[in-house]
Amino acid sequence: MQARCFQLKTVLIISLALFFSDKLDAQDQVITAKTSYQDLTKQIVNTALHEGKAYEMLVDLTKLGPRLSGSPQAAAAVELTRQMMEQLGFDNVRLQPIMVPHWVRGPIEEAAVINSPTMGTMPLTVCALGGSIATPEMGVVGEVIEVKSFEELRSLGKKAEGKIVFFNRPVDSTKMNTFEAYGGAVNQRGNGAIEAAKVGGIAALVRSMTTRLDDVPHTGGMGYEDGAPKIPAAAISTLDAEMLTRLIVQNKKVVVRMKLTCQTLPDAPSANVMGEITGSEKPDEIIVVSGHLDSWDKGTGAHDDGAGCMQAIEAVRLLKACGLKPKRTIRAVMFMNEENGLRGGEEYAREAAEKKIKHTAAMESDRGGFAPRGFTVQADSMIVSRISKWAHLLAPTGVEYIKSGGGGADIWPLSRQGVPAIGLVPESHRYFDYHHSDNDTIDKVNERELELGAAAMAIMAYLISEEF
Amino acid sequence: MQARCFQLKTVLIISLALFFSDKLDAQDQVITAKTSYQDLTKQIVNTALHEGKAYEMLVDLTKLGPRLSGSPQAAAAVELTRQMMEQLGFDNVRLQPIMVPHWVRGPIEEAAVINSPTMGTMPLTVCALGGSIATPEMGVVGEVIEVKSFEELRSLGKKAEGKIVFFNRPVDSTKMNTFEAYGGAVNQRGNGAIEAAKVGGIAALVRSMTTRLDDVPHTGGMGYEDGAPKIPAAAISTLDAEMLTRLIVQNKKVVVRMKLTCQTLPDAPSANVMGEITGSEKPDEIIVVSGHLDSWDKGTGAHDDGAGCMQAIEAVRLLKACGLKPKRTIRAVMFMNEENGLRGGEEYAREAAEKKIKHTAAMESDRGGFAPRGFTVQADSMIVSRISKWAHLLAPTGVEYIKSGGGGADIWPLSRQGVPAIGLVPESHRYFDYHHSDNDTIDKVNERELELGAAAMAIMAYLISEEF
Repeated sequence: MQARCFQLKTVLIISLALFFSDKLDAQDQVITAKTSYQDLTKQIVNTALHEGKAYEMLVDLTKLGPRLSGSPQAAAAVELTRQMMEQLGFDNVRLQPIMVPHWVRGPIEEAAVINSPTMGTMPLTVCALGGSIATPEMGVVGEVIEVKSFEELRSLGKKAEGKIVFFNRPVDSTKMNTFEAYGGAVNQRGNGAIEAAKVGGIAALVRSMTTRLDDVPHTGGMGYEDGAPKIPAAAISTLDAEMLTRLIVQNKKVVVRMKLTCQTLPDAPSANVMGEITGSEKPDEIIVVSGHLDSWDKGTGAHDDGAGCMQAIEAVRLLKACGLKPKRTIRAVMFMNEENGLRGGEEYAREAAEKKIKHTAAMESDRGGFAPRGFTVQADSMIVSRISKWAHLLAPTGVEYIKSGGGGADIWPLSRQGVPAIGLVPESHRYFDYHHSDNDTIDKVNERELELGAAAMAIMAYLISEEF
Repeated sequence: MQARCFQLKTVLIISLALFFSDKLDAQDQVITAKTSYQDLTKQIVNTALHEGKAYEMLVDLTKLGPRLSGSPQAAAAVELTRQMMEQLGFDNVRLQPIMVPHWVRGPIEEAAVINSPTMGTMPLTVCALGGSIATPEMGVVGEVIEVKSFEELRSLGKKAEGKIVFFNRPVDSTKMNTFEAYGGAVNQRGNGAIEAAKVGGIAALVRSMTTRLDDVPHTGGMGYEDGAPKIPAAAISTLDAEMLTRLIVQNKKVVVRMKLTCQTLPDAPSANVMGEITGSEKPDEIIVVSGHLDSWDKGTGAHDDGAGCMQAIEAVRLLKACGLKPKRTIRAVMFMNEENGLRGGEEYAREAAEKKIKHTAAMESDRGGFAPRGFTVQADSMIVSRISKWAHLLAPTGVEYIKSGGGGADIWPLSRQGVPAIGLVPESHRYFDYHHSDNDTIDKVNERELELGAAAMAIMAYLISEEF
């Protein structure tokens, strides 16, 4: 494998020399470079599919358990990924210390309809939303009032006072892109408690952010407004959301008791983890390939975002396994605390600005480890147009398009500084079946799909390294 | 939903009228037709994603258990799908009787290395290949000889005599299309016992046809040659295949005992199941949408091919749900006995020829219920070229290409008669993780992906109905 890679590299160097030869016109240059890159691309894909390591690394990572910021498991993940990069021979492996929010789910999270006509008490499958306060020790008890939007909630006036506000606008299943569908519903989770408190609500119950009908609640980040009252907030499974809405139609008055024992502890020490291939010509110009190492505390964060982290490490490993020495430094970064704070992404960008470290581009995989379909690029239109011409070189990974769009949450602080931010876009249909829930486990990940995403990131990073 | 569909239909009728108006030139015709078809396509996709039935029908089908030809479960599946079509109001719901092969797995299938250096007896995870004879009651005992190809086997000469031949050429994981990879290895399963018997082998052990390393054996069809000796044949899990090859390297002489109690019973009565929307203008011209109802007796045939069957029914249901009245008859066919005989496909084509029933086209989904990526068309190049121009109309389902290629096993007998045969091509990475094994169960199917395949079939069938 190494020998073949070396041959390819030689071909590449020759053709890149031709590429920059002023004897060739622009059209010839493109064709010559394309041919050799195509061979290289195939080699990276073959290496990924034949002897990829992303899946087995992800098995090891998910064995640690969920990795919520501040948890012992998150600390273990920092150390594990540091060791992975060391063992793979990455350069300059190191931690970037940060302090992270430290919210913990309590041992008790219960909810039940207590005036069900047939059964008396009818349990509901719920889990606290990340960041929620606990209920009082005896729980909260109140009539449930259902709304589909904040506008509807506000229009209720006094009717919501003293009630448990049930946000039940489903994720729109007719959208082909499930992230778009999620985007159309997730304000209920993020701001539901704020809006409910404003009208005198005593708690928020939020329909889980998935198109799937099942009995698994999906957690996720939520916030409070400074100075405004804070009320507890929980996600309810989609099946129980459907049941609750039927009960409300039948009974009119549905009373729920809910108890949560979650709490926010003092900030905890943690770190971003990084390691790299040092650039052979421009070592001070950095291309980031990344995912976020923290996960919610349900499932084991296999797709969100263990997959992206292992793909970032695998992308660098694949380039090394093929004997490539990119001109610029390609750095794998495991960002900490994407889910409830973005402290890792913010600190990385802050230090980069302070030390004037030049970042050529930053890439993130944070949409699950499914078969890659494309890339989205957050940059000025000239750069988007330039990168989008490489789509055919990515085709052996299954990528079909490169177009304008978001890069990723963790690299957003870098992109605010003008760094082009690139997001890997995999097939999205299954993502929200698993997202932030007990369903997000290693058995939902396919080895080939995961590897192809890593190969796509490797190729994209290498092209930027050589062509920018 | 019905109201909106009706509006679209009206728009469609008007634009189709325009389409055939001789006042418009060819270019205008195409554009006018395209616009209305695009609206229609979106409507079908929205209906599928918002109120699809394929997944819940597949849940019901898989609850019956595996559906091997001749089994009581296959008979139950015939009756269940007949009832489904009746309840959905399909026209002309009926059975087409056939006799099918009736092979049954026995209660005992065991294999073990009996001279393992460390553990004495070391069990191997195996299952009989479909169609295999049983071993003698005491099992077969023999030294294992490993080969990667029939050429290698033949070159061994006398060395294979009295041995258990272990076919261990892996499915090539570097192929992007896993069906191509499977095609490069599956002759070991289909003909391994024939070739092993020719050189005096006493049994065949075949590496499971999957790129995945796990402890699940994958069954599948195999054959014998008339008049030649028959020897028992079993699939071995990929992990145990790897273990066995290591033992052979270490020990040189590895002795395995294997016992299988499978048998072939007399042919059993069964049937194809069909139902349709009768064409509004050309009811005697048929477009088949199909899958095969039988499955292997491992797992519950969720992807292979419960998915295809439910997609075929769903395709017809979607057209009805949108109030469409296609010009030609669109018929859902559940073929029986694809896996070990193709009797259903053969009988369907035989009767069609005998009665001179005109088939405009036949379509099959038999590559799993994953996100659709394209269609392959087995027809003359004029027809392929004509159909391939519709790719953009299929784009809302995720389909990106329509190109020349195979239609499907069950519609192959029709295509031999000159009927254009069309195969739905979904994402292939996961298929062989599940194929013909205990892994092929409903939890591996995603509702959205399954539905989009059904929507793609509905749209394709409708376009053929209106445009051919």
